Amino acid sequence: MRRILIVGAGRSSAALVRYLLEKSAEEKLKVVIADISVENARKLAADHENCEVIELDIFNIESRKELVKCADIVISMLPARFHLEIAKDCLEFGKNLVTASYISKELKAMNNEVVEKGLVFMNEIGLDPGIDHMSAMHVIDRIKAQGGKMLLFESFTGGLVAPESDNNLWNYKFTWNPRNVVIAGQGGIAKFIQEGKYKYIPYHKLFRRTEFLSIEGYGKFEALANRDSLNYREVYGLEDILTLYRGTIRRVGFSRAWNIFVQLGMTDDSFIMEGSENMSYRDFTNSFLPYKPHDSVELKLRHYLKIDQDDVIWDKLLELDLFNAKKKVGLKDATPAQVLQRILMDSWTLKEEDKDMIVMYHKFGYEKDGIKKQIESNMVVIGEDQTFTAMAKTVGLPVAIATLAILNGRIKSPGVQLPIRKEVYDPILKELENHGIRFNEKEVPYLGYNPNNLGA
Amino acid sequence: MRRILIVGAGRSSAALVRYLLEKSAEEKLKVVIADISVENARKLAADHENCEVIELDIFNIESRKELVKCADIVISMLPARFHLEIAKDCLEFGKNLVTASYISKELKAMNNEVVEKGLVFMNEIGLDPGIDHMSAMHVIDRIKAQGGKMLLFESFTGGLVAPESDNNLWNYKFTWNPRNVVIAGQGGIAKFIQEGKYKYIPYHKLFRRTEFLSIEGYGKFEALANRDSLNYREVYGLEDILTLYRGTIRRVGFSRAWNIFVQLGMTDDSFIMEGSENMSYRDFTNSFLPYKPHDSVELKLRHYLKIDQDDVIWDKLLELDLFNAKKKVGLKDATPAQVLQRILMDSWTLKEEDKDMIVMYHKFGYEKDGIKKQIESNMVVIGEDQTFTAMAKTVGLPVAIATLAILNGRIKSPGVQLPIRKEVYDPILKELENHGIRFNEKEVPYLGYNPNNLGA
Repeated sequence: MRRILIVGAGRSSAALVRYLLEKSAEEKLKVVIADISVENARKLAADHENCEVIELDIFNIESRKELVKCADIVISMLPARFHLEIAKDCLEFGKNLVTASYISKELKAMNNEVVEKGLVFMNEIGLDPGIDHMSAMHVIDRIKAQGGKMLLFESFTGGLVAPESDNNLWNYKFTWNPRNVVIAGQGGIAKFIQEGKYKYIPYHKLFRRTEFLSIEGYGKFEALANRDSLNYREVYGLEDILTLYRGTIRRVGFSRAWNIFVQLGMTDDSFIMEGSENMSYRDFTNSFLPYKPHDSVELKLRHYLKIDQDDVIWDKLLELDLFNAKKKVGLKDATPAQVLQRILMDSWTLKEEDKDMIVMYHKFGYEKDGIKKQIESNMVVIGEDQTFTAMAKTVGLPVAIATLAILNGRIKSPGVQLPIRKEVYDPILKELENHGIRFNEKEVPYLGYNPNNLGA
Repeated sequence: MRRILIVGAGRSSAALVRYLLEKSAEEKLKVVIADISVENARKLAADHENCEVIELDIFNIESRKELVKCADIVISMLPARFHLEIAKDCLEFGKNLVTASYISKELKAMNNEVVEKGLVFMNEIGLDPGIDHMSAMHVIDRIKAQGGKMLLFESFTGGLVAPESDNNLWNYKFTWNPRNVVIAGQGGIAKFIQEGKYKYIPYHKLFRRTEFLSIEGYGKFEALANRDSLNYREVYGLEDILTLYRGTIRRVGFSRAWNIFVQLGMTDDSFIMEGSENMSYRDFTNSFLPYKPHDSVELKLRHYLKIDQDDVIWDKLLELDLFNAKKKVGLKDATPAQVLQRILMDSWTLKEEDKDMIVMYHKFGYEKDGIKKQIESNMVVIGEDQTFTAMAKTVGLPVAIATLAILNGRIKSPGVQLPIRKEVYDPILKELENHGIRFNEKEVPYLGYNPNNLGA
């Protein structure tokens, strides 16, 4: 039996564990799940004969090293900041490693040693980062191999609520870490390039500069720019590309309403509000509005942000109970972002029967034999239930498949890496299709941004 | 002769040096100006027999200590971050110290030693901080002494162009460090309290939440909230006050137009723009606008920020040449804020004959014998020329007067302090009046924010 050590077994590990256990007899696998809290791990193991659950505090160095030493390959599903210690152990004991997180500077710095020892440290092999890399490079490499020159690459991903569970005015529920949703877009201006022109969007305009996209059978979506688009020029080998834009998908209308929170200052996470604990939802809203004792909080907000009386934004705010004078925030020393998260969780927490949905959408513009062409490619995954969510499947399955491929020597080029080489993405994308994670691709007329080459 | 050592002789030292030299014969003063660049110091000294100019690199510890050791009192007009070294020298050699800067944590921590040695380290005794403290405490202490209870304190200060030199559409020129104007309001949400309600304004709304004020003979002004109003509760002994608001004064209409820069992202100082050096002013503007090759930069901006065709904001933007495709930025690796500063300096740099103006305005609301009352107090100072500017006078004269008062033992309570005690502010305010820096005070009907106690 070959021992696969999974360190950390959070919400995203369900599909990962299921996949490996389903293959365990045929592939002779022993799956060892080590976590500080074994409850969730036991649930995932479900008394499977090839699964073992071990309680592990990763700061207990001796136990951690012992586990790594006995493993044939290690998967770290810990929060990203803890990967480095596991990676050091893997280097010490000569074990391959798989994570779904971005490659940190520190991890990157280990590359020479990893190569010397002939090890594979595969990272960014979840959903985003992960499936986005693989599905993009799959098309980009093909276009290049056929002699095409890349002109445009746009890529959008979103974690949403499935259509059958989509029953609020925002068309949104928290399918992942709510905090990340509340502070999304903060921490720096969004930069990208369109037809060779650098473009910058500050946070307070981000939710008013969305792009639209449609997916057959699923309708219309909107996307807001990510901060980091320009980095991908180097990662994907697109140094000369004229248009490069990455974004986050929401249902149409979400961003225009979310912008209300941004404009008010409710998403600010940089200071503690005085008296947050005993504040009502109405007090919270009022604290971002001018002091005008003759006017209601409602009218002050409408006037301040120029919301017409028949604008659906207003109903969205009412749905969240933002003007309720009786509901208390109940959070001590909270930032506005923390208070807003609390308020949103009343309305946006998934119900037992709710399902989630992952949507990914790429546009590839290129020129071949003097003709401009465009390919669009999209993927939609709906969750099975609250355990095997679309998020857990799209994060966990590529990790599982990559782990097995490395274990079986089908992925063997050593180094600290991400899945952008054909050797890696081809077999993984193929296997993902067997599990319902597939891309629909079609040629469309080249649109670009500037088909007639007009100035500016 | 008593030696007054002035370390650093920048633009704000002109009135300081002139005052001390005028008093030098009568008061037996030797004024020693030490600076790394002696050119400006020599100009200020103007060969006066009681003035000596010495070239000093403050990082040359030996020379610096020697100068402090020989002085009877030390004034540091260096940038704030350098005061600490001078303060340590003063402590070592038992010398009193005067600065116009905010008291840093490190300086505050020296208080016990300063008191033990019986020294006076007087700080925040320029304009703002300085005259604002003194003129406010002068009225607050009097109200309290007469049995009044403070309800409201609002205080506004601005450095503007004098009416006779006010000849652009913005009614603004750079009368001080341009960079501070460009990044004003950044670095944290503005917090204040109105009638007992905490209010918060995020940066991107700051310039749309202005208050108006009028000063007889000078017309109407607007003020935008400072970040730090709440700190002043403790500093001024106003712990229970219901309204506390501090702000920065501009001419009416400035903020609404400045908001265009904020909304676009042009005041961002957190990232470097690709290709800033060869960018035209028009390119700079366009980089914050959507890519739409069929539309002009002008129309894109008008549409994006909803500027009507007959809105004066538009003329303000044209006055700055923001759409000029020929003028190059010419700054390598510049942030948007640095580029914007460069563009503004074309239009807002003071001309040889231009004069500046300092405006300060306080409102004091209080209750006495069951009756609510209000006092308004304002000060306007116009510069004499480009050397004896209003800024140099209002910063330098309080420093000079305090220095002489400490030297003559009229201010003697030891410690690291700011001018909020009667012993300190009374004689200084009186002497300032002799130099044309005077407050006009009047009783007005109490307005407050909520005279009829209506809800919300």
